[in-house]
Amino acid sequence: MIQMTLIQIDNYGPWTVTPKPRNESDLQILQAELFADVQKQFSTKKGLVFFTRFDNMLAITNGINEEDHLRIQRSIKNRYPITISMGVGAAETPHEAQRLATLALQNEGGAQSSDRKEILAIDSLADGKDNYVQVAHIDINSVTETLTDVESAFDTSFMVNKAQHYLMTKLIKKGALLFFIGGDNFMSPCNGLSEKEIEEILIEIDDEIGIGLKAGIGRGRNAEDAAYMADIGLENIRAGNNVDWTEVIEKGC
Amino acid sequence: MIQMTLIQIDNYGPWTVTPKPRNESDLQILQAELFADVQKQFSTKKGLVFFTRFDNMLAITNGINEEDHLRIQRSIKNRYPITISMGVGAAETPHEAQRLATLALQNEGGAQSSDRKEILAIDSLADGKDNYVQVAHIDINSVTETLTDVESAFDTSFMVNKAQHYLMTKLIKKGALLFFIGGDNFMSPCNGLSEKEIEEILIEIDDEIGIGLKAGIGRGRNAEDAAYMADIGLENIRAGNNVDWTEVIEKGC
Amino acid sequence: MIQMTLIQIDNYGPWTVTPKPRNESDLQILQAELFADVQKQFSTKKGLVFFTRFDNMLAITNGINEEDHLRIQRSIKNRYPITISMGVGAAETPHEAQRLATLALQNEGGAQSSDRKEILAIDSLADGKDNYVQVAHIDINSVTETLTDVESAFDTSFMVNKAQHYLMTKLIKKGALLFFIGGDNFMSPCNGLSEKEIEEILIEIDDEIGIGLKAGIGRGRNAEDAAYMADIGLENIRAGNNVDWTEVIEKGC
Amino acid sequence: MIQMTLIQIDNYGPWTVTPKPRNESDLQILQAELFADVQKQFSTKKGLVFFTRFDNMLAITNGINEEDHLRIQRSIKNRYPITISMGVGAAETPHEAQRLATLALQNEGGAQSSDRKEILAIDSLADGKDNYVQVAHIDINSVTETLTDVESAFDTSFMVNKAQHYLMTKLIKKGALLFFIGGDNFMSPCNGLSEKEIEEILIEIDDEIGIGLKAGIGRGRNAEDAAYMADIGLENIRAGNNVDWTEVIEKGC
Repeated sequence: MIQMTLIQIDNYGPWTVTPKPRNESDLQILQAELFADVQKQFSTKKGLVFFTRFDNMLAITNGINEEDHLRIQRSIKNRYPITISMGVGAAETPHEAQRLATLALQNEGGAQSSDRKEILAIDSLADGKDNYVQVAHIDINSVTETLTDVESAFDTSFMVNKAQHYLMTKLIKKGALLFFIGGDNFMSPCNGLSEKEIEEILIEIDDEIGIGLKAGIGRGRNAEDAAYMADIGLENIRAGNNVDWTEVIEKGC
Repeated sequence: MIQMTLIQIDNYGPWTVTPKPRNESDLQILQAELFADVQKQFSTKKGLVFFTRFDNMLAITNGINEEDHLRIQRSIKNRYPITISMGVGAAETPHEAQRLATLALQNEGGAQSSDRKEILAIDSLADGKDNYVQVAHIDINSVTETLTDVESAFDTSFMVNKAQHYLMTKLIKKGALLFFIGGDNFMSPCNGLSEKEIEEILIEIDDEIGIGLKAGIGRGRNAEDAAYMADIGLENIRAGNNVDWTEVIEKGC
Repeated sequence: MIQMTLIQIDNYGPWTVTPKPRNESDLQILQAELFADVQKQFSTKKGLVFFTRFDNMLAITNGINEEDHLRIQRSIKNRYPITISMGVGAAETPHEAQRLATLALQNEGGAQSSDRKEILAIDSLADGKDNYVQVAHIDINSVTETLTDVESAFDTSFMVNKAQHYLMTKLIKKGALLFFIGGDNFMSPCNGLSEKEIEEILIEIDDEIGIGLKAGIGRGRNAEDAAYMADIGLENIRAGNNVDWTEVIEKGC
Repeated sequence: MIQMTLIQIDNYGPWTVTPKPRNESDLQILQAELFADVQKQFSTKKGLVFFTRFDNMLAITNGINEEDHLRIQRSIKNRYPITISMGVGAAETPHEAQRLATLALQNEGGAQSSDRKEILAIDSLADGKDNYVQVAHIDINSVTETLTDVESAFDTSFMVNKAQHYLMTKLIKKGALLFFIGGDNFMSPCNGLSEKEIEEILIEIDDEIGIGLKAGIGRGRNAEDAAYMADIGLENIRAGNNVDWTEVIEKGC
C-alpha cells in the first residue's frame, strides 16, 4: 500500500490579502521555503513531498507515523506566520490514498475555515510490511538539444507544461498521479500500473503531441528508495540512448 | 518596455546524476531554496521571479541593472554547489523580451555545456522612463468551495493545471506569458494586451472547459508595483463577488 | 552517557579566500543557513546542535546512529558548496564526549587538509539504555529591565559575553560545556554535575562580576527531552520571581 | 560617519515560552534563519549584519535609507511568526552610532512591551558624502595548527571566546565594537581608531593571555567595501606569515 499525506496551509487565501495584499515576492518566498522545509523534514524519514499547489502539497509518506506528522506541524507553527493541517491515507493506488487523505481533512473543516487549525486527520496508515511504493520518473527525450538550447525559455516551459497536462490526463484515469519536479522531469506515484501501461501512455503522447518521453520505474518500501530505483532505471535508458520504446521502461528493482 | 531575465543553472542535468543520482528530496530542496533565494535578492530591487522550470527561471527585472545581476550570480556561487548564468532582454512584449534574453544566453553556449559558466549575457536593458510592466493576476472563481473543499487534492491540482495549460496556450499567441504562482493563482506578464483581449480569453476558457476565471490587471514601472496593483484589482472583483464578466477586469492603475 | 558530535566544514578557511576573499555577507549567510540546516536535520531525531564556531559545531546526538549521520553529510554535500566531516564520541561527561569526538576526527586528517573530505569518524555511540543527557538552561535575571531596555545594544551584548566567558571558565573545569543560544540564554550540557555545583558557580559569578544568573536543569534520554525539562525548570523559577538562590535550581525531571 | 541599525525581535522572550516553552531546536533554526534573511536583504544594499544576540542584531547600514529599512521589516512580518523593530543612528564612532540607534528604539517602548511592534525609530542617517566605515578583520594566528587540529573542539571554542572577551573589553573603551563572525574571526567596526591603537590592543592581548592575533583594516563608503578591503589586508599578512607585529596592521585602502 502507498501512504499519502495532504499538507494544507490553514486559511491561507484570506491571510495573503489581510489587511491588504501582501507582496507577491514575499508570498513566493514563503511558499518555496515552506515546501523546502517540509521536504527536509519528511525526507529525514524517507518521505518525498511534491509542491503540487504550494498551499496544498502531497507527499508519499510510507513509514512515517502519527508522531512524526505532529512534530512537523509543530515545527512549522514555531517558525512560520501560518500553520498547516494534514490528512493521511493509505490505499492500493496513489489516487485512492490521496483521496482518503483529503477526505479525512475535509471532514475536519474547510481550507478557509478560521476554526480549523493544525488538524492532523489520519484515515489510515500503511502497516510495516504492507508498505509498498511504485514511482515512475519520466522525462523528455533530448530536451536540452531540442528545446532548452534552441527554443525560448518560455516556449520550452510551455512544452513541458503541455507534456505534464497530457500525462496527468492519462495517468489520473489509471489511479496514478503525476507531479512536475523541475526541468523536464515528472514523477508519477503509480502503484498498480504495469510497465506496459506506462509505456502505452508515453507512446500515445508521442503520437498525439510529438513529445518523446521515457520513464524509469522504481519500487521500494518507501518513497526515497522507490525514487532512487526509478532514477537508476532512467539512467540506464539514458546510457542506452533511449531509441527503442521496448527499452523505455527499465525496471528499477 | 518590459525587461526579463532568464536564470539558468549551469550544466545542472549532468550534475544531478554525477557520480550517481542524487537524492530526489535533496534536489527538490535545492531547487526550492535557490528559487526563494534569487526571489529574495531580485525582490529587494522590485523584481519578481517565476519558478518556471526551477532549473530555468524567468523574472521581470525592470530597474535592475548589470551590476545587480552580477552580484546575485556571485552570491549564488558562494552559497550553492551550482552556479547560474543569466540572459537579459527588454522588448515591447514579454514573450519577445524573454526570447531575446534566451537567445543572448544560448549564444554563449548550451545549458549543458561544461565550458559555459556564470555567464551574464545582456541583449538589452529597459531605460529609465521606458520601464513599463503590465501583469494580470488570474485566479479560479470560488476554488475553495468548488474544488479544494470537495474534490480530492490531486483532482483539484489537475483542474488548476488544466486551467494553466489553456491559459498558456492562448496567451502565448498574444505575446504574453503565464506562470503558476501557487494555489489557484496565475500571473501573466502581458504588456500590450488590452483588458478586452484578456477578458475574451477568460470567457473562451470558461466555455471550453467550464473553469471560471477572473483577472486583476496592474501596471507600473517595475514588477512589484504592477503585481501589487493587479492584486488590488483582483480584491476589488472578489469584493464584488465576480458574478459578471464585464466586471472581471479591474484596472489596477 | 552523553553522545556528542563534532561537525566540521572541510577545508573551510582556504575556501573562504579562494581565489579572493568571498563577500563577508555571503559567508555569514552560508554559515547561518548551514547551522539551521543541520539543526533541522538532527532535531528530527531529537538531537540539538550548538553553533559554537559555525565552521565547527558541537551537537548532543544521543539516539542518532551512524546511518543518520551519513545521511546528513550527504544531504549537505548535495546542497552546499562545501562538505562536512564529523566525529562522534560518547562518555560520562560532555567534555570527554566531545574530546573523543574531536580526537576521532583529528586522527583522520587536519581541518585544512585538502585530502580529508566527508569523513565520519565514530569513536563511540551511546547504547540504548545508556543514553542520558543532563543540560542546564541558564539566563540572566531581569535582563530586559536591567540591560536591554536601558543600556546600549552593544553594552548589553558585552555583558552577555562576559557572563558567557565566566560561565565557560568555571564549567569547563567541571567537565561541562557552555553554549550561547541567543538573547541572554546559555545551555550547558552538564552530565555529572550536581545542582549544588551549578548553584555555586552561579553564586560565584554574581559575587565576582555582579551578573545574576538562574538555571533550570533537565534530564532525559535525548537532547530534546532534557532541554525541554530544563526550560520547564526555568519557567518555574521565573514564575517564582527568582529571588532566592536556593530556588535557583529547579529540577526538570 | 558610520551608520548603525539595531534590529530587535518584538516581544520575543515571552513568545518563546507561550503557551509553553517552544522546542529549543525550532528557536535555534528560527534565529539563524532570521539572521541569514536580514543579512541577505541588507547585503543587497551593501550593509553587513552581525548576529550579536540573535534577538538583537547590530548592522552597519551606511547607504541604506528609511524605505529600505521599512521594506525589510515588512518582508520579515510576511514570512515569520514574529516581527522586528529597528533603531538607526549615525555618529563618528560605532559605539556612539549604535547607542543612538538603541536610544531611539528604547524611546518607543520596551523590548518586551506587547504594545510596541514593527517600530522604525531613526535618530539619524549618514549623508551621502559623510558615509565612512572603518572595520578591522581580526583572527587568531595559526589557529588550525595550534588549536583546531590539536585541542578538543570545545577547548578551541573556549580560547576563541576568551580572545573575544578580551577584544571586546579593550575595544569598547575606544568607542569601537567587536563581533564574532565564525571560526577564529572577529570583525570590529572601528571608525576613529588608528592602526597603532589596534596594534597595541593586539599586543596587549598576546602579553596577557598568550593568544596571538592579527588584523586587516579596511575603509570604504559602506560596510561591504570596508570589509572587503579588511579581508585583502588580512590576506596580505597571511601571505607574509605574520611574524612581525609591525606588519600586523595592513592598510586596506
